[in-house]
Amino acid sequence: MTAQASRSDHDPATPDIGDVEAYMQRLGQGAREAATRMRRVDTAAKNAALLAMAELLEQARGEVLDANARDLARGRESGLEAALLDRLALDDTRLDAMIDGLAQVASLPDPVGEIDGLRSRPSGIQVGQMRVPLGVIGIIYESRPNVTLEAASLCLKSGNAAILRGGSEARDSNAAIAACIRAGLARAGLPEGAVQVVATTDRAAVGRLISMPEYVDVIIPRGGKSLIERITREARVPVIKHLDGVCHVYIDASADPDKALAIAVNAKTHRYGTCNTMETLLVDAPVAEALLPTLARAYGEHGVELRGCERTRAILGDIAEASEADWHAEYLAPVLAIRVVDGIDAAMAHIERYGSRHTDAIVTEHYGLARRFLAEVDSSSVMVNASTRFADGFEYGLGAEIGISTDRLHARGPVGLEGLTTRKYVVLGDGQVRR
Amino acid sequence: MTAQASRSDHDPATPDIGDVEAYMQRLGQGAREAATRMRRVDTAAKNAALLAMAELLEQARGEVLDANARDLARGRESGLEAALLDRLALDDTRLDAMIDGLAQVASLPDPVGEIDGLRSRPSGIQVGQMRVPLGVIGIIYESRPNVTLEAASLCLKSGNAAILRGGSEARDSNAAIAACIRAGLARAGLPEGAVQVVATTDRAAVGRLISMPEYVDVIIPRGGKSLIERITREARVPVIKHLDGVCHVYIDASADPDKALAIAVNAKTHRYGTCNTMETLLVDAPVAEALLPTLARAYGEHGVELRGCERTRAILGDIAEASEADWHAEYLAPVLAIRVVDGIDAAMAHIERYGSRHTDAIVTEHYGLARRFLAEVDSSSVMVNASTRFADGFEYGLGAEIGISTDRLHARGPVGLEGLTTRKYVVLGDGQVRR
Repeated sequence: MTAQASRSDHDPATPDIGDVEAYMQRLGQGAREAATRMRRVDTAAKNAALLAMAELLEQARGEVLDANARDLARGRESGLEAALLDRLALDDTRLDAMIDGLAQVASLPDPVGEIDGLRSRPSGIQVGQMRVPLGVIGIIYESRPNVTLEAASLCLKSGNAAILRGGSEARDSNAAIAACIRAGLARAGLPEGAVQVVATTDRAAVGRLISMPEYVDVIIPRGGKSLIERITREARVPVIKHLDGVCHVYIDASADPDKALAIAVNAKTHRYGTCNTMETLLVDAPVAEALLPTLARAYGEHGVELRGCERTRAILGDIAEASEADWHAEYLAPVLAIRVVDGIDAAMAHIERYGSRHTDAIVTEHYGLARRFLAEVDSSSVMVNASTRFADGFEYGLGAEIGISTDRLHARGPVGLEGLTTRKYVVLGDGQVRR
Repeated sequence: MTAQASRSDHDPATPDIGDVEAYMQRLGQGAREAATRMRRVDTAAKNAALLAMAELLEQARGEVLDANARDLARGRESGLEAALLDRLALDDTRLDAMIDGLAQVASLPDPVGEIDGLRSRPSGIQVGQMRVPLGVIGIIYESRPNVTLEAASLCLKSGNAAILRGGSEARDSNAAIAACIRAGLARAGLPEGAVQVVATTDRAAVGRLISMPEYVDVIIPRGGKSLIERITREARVPVIKHLDGVCHVYIDASADPDKALAIAVNAKTHRYGTCNTMETLLVDAPVAEALLPTLARAYGEHGVELRGCERTRAILGDIAEASEADWHAEYLAPVLAIRVVDGIDAAMAHIERYGSRHTDAIVTEHYGLARRFLAEVDSSSVMVNASTRFADGFEYGLGAEIGISTDRLHARGPVGLEGLTTRKYVVLGDGQVRR
């Protein structure tokens, strides 16, 4: 692109930010300073900012929808696929949900300052752990512009400063939403560095954002596996990440057949594209012959393609053979791998080997097996007699979620406000010294 | 060294492990398998192993002391400095403490399996968070051989598998202790992969240990700052790290002078070489003239060298000027930097700029200032009217500590058994599906 073309393409929504390195450095400094101030902002001020943003967004509906229309037009022109266009699109219903979301986050309890387990020690001091913000959070996401507002509201409520980098497809929508965020912060007297939306689509901005440990404390990437893997590999700060969801339901011989049927069908067919959707069904050998044909009929009604192990095919006959790749697959589609296993140990061994440690469920009426599955399956969510589709911040009562972590340290499973905080020790004394 | 010399030097304590890469891979596989089994080991079996190790160590006192004597002789020969020789040395008193430590860890409550906050959701499911082991923990440490046992006992009690890599100075002592650990595991029927002590002093073993994410879930380095920085830089798995402790005491004008004096003296002079020792004293201007001369006399009695800002020197006269480097310094020695500041905001700004976010204390009788200091100082331990020396796992009632984390995510401050675990979600249902 020539300099001329660049100028003529210039859009007020993507201001000329000059040198990207220097720009990101300024954002970083602003966020770090804001994070220090945010530590002493009270709940009322944070809620006031959230409600102001809701009001401003309500008033700016027209501008936001216009901006979104420009993004959609550009997306169609550049041949963006239909699924991405759908994620990108805003309408009044989606705007309503965004506005409601702000009010909902305002209504959630503020986790900051909560002190757990304050207890007296023989030395006379009292020791407890106080929940505090993480500091500065960088969030990198793809096409959905509503993430801008969701991420902003959760970071703000948890007392953090946020730097948000959305996808270039959504740049005009994000800029319009960012204007509401800025105005809302100002109205509540909060520093503008508390939430900053990166105003350039230059990819170098991402590279810089993930390598400024002096300004950014943690990165949360939201998007496809390749984006997350790349960021994890290149980041010089900790990453709270969500890789794939290869989720299992294991139907034990002790299962109530009605529950087994309901859960196995719901876990696969409630939604296909979500990370908590079941991708492999494991069926205990003694009940395989009784259950599989009924299950296959139910899946057939939903148009789900089945791929089975040899024993599954011996029962169901006309289905494709599942290959090694199928056991590893996160289909995100109406496809299901089925394996007949010999009992809970074989089921858990399969999950250990092929699972992604996201969400796994057992269907059983046997108390001891339920206890074993809960204790021994090493996944971020482990369930008894419930659909894997429940692995979700709203369903768990977190109020909202910024993502689902498949990491082991810090936050595991759906990450809500608490996952955006950490705990420091507080010691209350009366002049005590160490003897 | 020729092959001949290598053979003649060969010590039964450092068996010929062959190719280091392949050896570390075997340890990793063994640990991963053991970690899976450890998830279902009950508290009684873990305690039995700890108590068996205590008994075996009691019986092996002679062998352990002989091995330690060999390490000490080798250390003296190679010109190891006195402080390191002291850390390396074992005697009956230190062995007593190690044996008692095992019994103490056995007596601690088992954190694994604890479920927090189990609550019913409108959908009918119950959701809670279950505390589970981290998995495989790699610990890299320097000369003190008692760390081998401490680390082994804490990892074991928290249900993890551990790979321990001690310093080459302590190789014979560590090998003798490792024999007790192995025998203790075997006696309690636990897998030998649950605790493995790396039996080679080859430095390539460390490089491999920190870059096997498929086998190792987290690395905890214990040692000097340069070791920790190098490992953090090179590790391909998360690191729970402890960098420096530049700790502050701020004496506010509202302080009780007796408490201020006691805390400021204790925080500096109780021990010099520890990370929770105060390195910079901040004194509020209105009380500087009244307090500093008394403090200077007390420090003088302990032989502490003072370095002050201009205003401090205007009061105390004959002390050295503190340079910019002094405000950043972790002396670990009888040296103290002193600065006169104007109130809590200036004190907190100093701590924010120069501190290491380890432990900081305020001395005050003012309720509002105490609350502000607790909320706004961003350190792993924040104290009111108590000596910074209390920042310690035993003093906090954790029972034991594997280190003090200055990280922000996961564990912050003293890390005990709980810091070696993580929490997964558990969902208890009765056939619920997502609507």
